[in-house]
Amino acid sequence: MTDLARLSINQMTVKQLSLPELADACAALGIGQVGLWREPVRAFGVAETAKLVRDAGLAVTTLCRGGFLTALGPEERAAALADNRRAVDEAATLGTDTLVLVSGGLPPGAKDLRAARERIADALTELAPYAEDRGVRLAIEALHPMYAADRCVVSTLAQALDLAERFPAHQVGVTVDTYHVWWDDRAPAQIARAGATGRIHSFQLADWTTPLPEGALTGRGRLGDGAIDMREWKGYVEAAGYTGPIEVELFNERLWARDGREVLAETAERFVEHVIRR
Amino acid sequence: MTDLARLSINQMTVKQLSLPELADACAALGIGQVGLWREPVRAFGVAETAKLVRDAGLAVTTLCRGGFLTALGPEERAAALADNRRAVDEAATLGTDTLVLVSGGLPPGAKDLRAARERIADALTELAPYAEDRGVRLAIEALHPMYAADRCVVSTLAQALDLAERFPAHQVGVTVDTYHVWWDDRAPAQIARAGATGRIHSFQLADWTTPLPEGALTGRGRLGDGAIDMREWKGYVEAAGYTGPIEVELFNERLWARDGREVLAETAERFVEHVIRR
Repeated sequence: MTDLARLSINQMTVKQLSLPELADACAALGIGQVGLWREPVRAFGVAETAKLVRDAGLAVTTLCRGGFLTALGPEERAAALADNRRAVDEAATLGTDTLVLVSGGLPPGAKDLRAARERIADALTELAPYAEDRGVRLAIEALHPMYAADRCVVSTLAQALDLAERFPAHQVGVTVDTYHVWWDDRAPAQIARAGATGRIHSFQLADWTTPLPEGALTGRGRLGDGAIDMREWKGYVEAAGYTGPIEVELFNERLWARDGREVLAETAERFVEHVIRR
Repeated sequence: MTDLARLSINQMTVKQLSLPELADACAALGIGQVGLWREPVRAFGVAETAKLVRDAGLAVTTLCRGGFLTALGPEERAAALADNRRAVDEAATLGTDTLVLVSGGLPPGAKDLRAARERIADALTELAPYAEDRGVRLAIEALHPMYAADRCVVSTLAQALDLAERFPAHQVGVTVDTYHVWWDDRAPAQIARAGATGRIHSFQLADWTTPLPEGALTGRGRLGDGAIDMREWKGYVEAAGYTGPIEVELFNERLWARDGREVLAETAERFVEHVIRR
């Protein structure tokens, strides 16, 4: 097994690369796995992307992202469900077994986080069997609490598992992303809980750096630049039985402003240095 | 009891007002309590501030802030302890019984949150008896997890109470600030836990609004502008037996750019509308 065998590059890390450029650059570096995002995939064409990655011998570890399931009105709710069914279809076409869910924030004016989480559970009742029929697992991602209002009311792994465990593990599990859970002293125990029922469907890495940029979305640090001990978290998921891909997903304006191939090579180097080697 | 009887204005909410202006404006509006910050108090003079608030009939509900107790080196650590003893002395001079602690983030290069929390506990072993001798209680503030790296490794009320409960309640308790804990589904139970042992030493309000500004420090929302149900959180602390002051602490560039007296009047109105009236 090479040092890069478990690395998956999430497309957003190098979003300046087109899909063919990404496939070429991965081949050049010996990276065999990618995580994809719906918007660039749809812009290129879902079937075309599926053919591209198949021809390149790239495995698609996840599709990001479904979710946004907290709408109150029946029409918005139906539209969200329809969009999520399309996301499942796209995941199946791309040949990935995992659709990552960013569950959605509070609707305008709403203040009830608990009720919003229940609406997610309701939506999963419809989506999970639909996904299973297409060979796709849903992976609820706990997002950092700083996104609770406007992006994701699921703020901890404990909450994500409380939702996921209402469904069979082959239908619904969780995404463990270091950027979102590193601060949480309960997260290691929740990773063990997730592993015990086979619910770690995705494992993603990004480092925590400060100061946060305006909007708090595009400041994810390169591996090794921030406060998170990547080996420690890899240890937690491995102790929980996870041996799957390790996806590096950085949203970072400074990386996006650089040459994408250079960023990809650097990311692979840092992956080896901060995650794999001891 | 008037609608404003429980309101305390934290000085930072209207930091554009000098201390005499703040005292005047509070008197004009019928606000009888303030929370003070060390820097402006020291700039005006601690004894001078004590005389000013005494003459104005203002009660000082808290002094913000001690803390930053996570340093690794012995010299930095000794300096932090000395500074915290000064903060206790200042609180005593000002006539407040509560010093709020912002515990400190990770030292440069450090990645161990648990070890940093233990260093806080060690420091409290020295500080808590010192404070008790001067009639001052320490109130550990759980800060939002987005500040875990650079400001406060105590991210939840559960963690704050785990620290506080190593000491008698009259020495160490917690600050409950809606801005920091609103996202946490465990917070209501932790408030009950804090109340059961008499450890709610301060209760502060700010609303959660998005997008966050760069640095994530100065975007606290006016009461009613954001995602937090203020009455709900007042209900939690009251159910836990808390009947003390309710301090409004907003860090908000837009408020600071306005006329301070106008902001103070508006804050009092919003307090009545969103916290007191039903």
